[in-house]
Amino acid sequence: MSAIDKTLKANKAYSNSFALADLPKPPGYKLAVVACMDARVTVEEMLGLKTGDAHIIRNAGSIVTDDVLRSLVISTRLLGTREIMIIGHTNCGMVSFNEKELVDRLVEETGTDVVSPGAFLPFSDLEENVRRQVSKVDHHPWIGSEVSVRGFVFDVKSGGLKEIL
Amino acid sequence: MSAIDKTLKANKAYSNSFALADLPKPPGYKLAVVACMDARVTVEEMLGLKTGDAHIIRNAGSIVTDDVLRSLVISTRLLGTREIMIIGHTNCGMVSFNEKELVDRLVEETGTDVVSPGAFLPFSDLEENVRRQVSKVDHHPWIGSEVSVRGFVFDVKSGGLKEIL
Repeated sequence: MSAIDKTLKANKAYSNSFALADLPKPPGYKLAVVACMDARVTVEEMLGLKTGDAHIIRNAGSIVTDDVLRSLVISTRLLGTREIMIIGHTNCGMVSFNEKELVDRLVEETGTDVVSPGAFLPFSDLEENVRRQVSKVDHHPWIGSEVSVRGFVFDVKSGGLKEIL
Repeated sequence: MSAIDKTLKANKAYSNSFALADLPKPPGYKLAVVACMDARVTVEEMLGLKTGDAHIIRNAGSIVTDDVLRSLVISTRLLGTREIMIIGHTNCGMVSFNEKELVDRLVEETGTDVVSPGAFLPFSDLEENVRRQVSKVDHHPWIGSEVSVRGFVFDVKSGGLKEIL
């Protein structure tokens, strides 16, 4: 059975027991979380969030890209969130490759250069990366000064969170 | 107590009971999921995924942006995923605003025009949006033809998934 078919089977049980009771669109915690796509980072569970509590935005490396800013502006301006957590994590795959080597390999393996994605955004220092991402949100003129932004590192071995700033 | 402080308290309990047993970086299901940031879409729970099973990529509207392609190329090429699910959902906030009106409002409220984000990407037809996002992944030369891509709509009232293509 394919992985997707397994998830569809699991969804049958979820759907049968589903009782969302018409949750509203705006997150109950007025919270947006930016985290990595990593399979070991189960955002809701590690933060004790229930369905309806928070916007969850995830990509490779918890990088505040143009796309994450798009989501955060919609989250804060249209859906009323007032706190933002940016969460990096230990043992992140984004520190394990070199941008140029990856692009060279992709061009060689696929026989084609590509316009998008324009960059892969690896980084070397985990905490410094979180600081940089927080600064992009903190200083964005379309995200109001009433929005609180805090940065964390999640430890994939202990399950704990450490506040960076 | 702030929302973030509540999540940190919850994380203390999670961290105390944490037993990831050194899960490997590559997702166990060889699966990547693209879903919306919406608070009512609890991806792992609705798909029966456990910590370590899948990459989860989320933004406003489940749109396959440059940033999502970045994450998917890393997921498939560097971390071995072989199936991709793209999941839209009913009652999505992305159908409820107009791009130009939002930008005009932001410029007026904040007193500044902004370069990034360059667009907010609302859409009007939910299923058509999922089809378009699937097509971007399906035809991307850096995502191999051995990768299976399927599109779904999640019903935020019933909790069920409907396959679109």
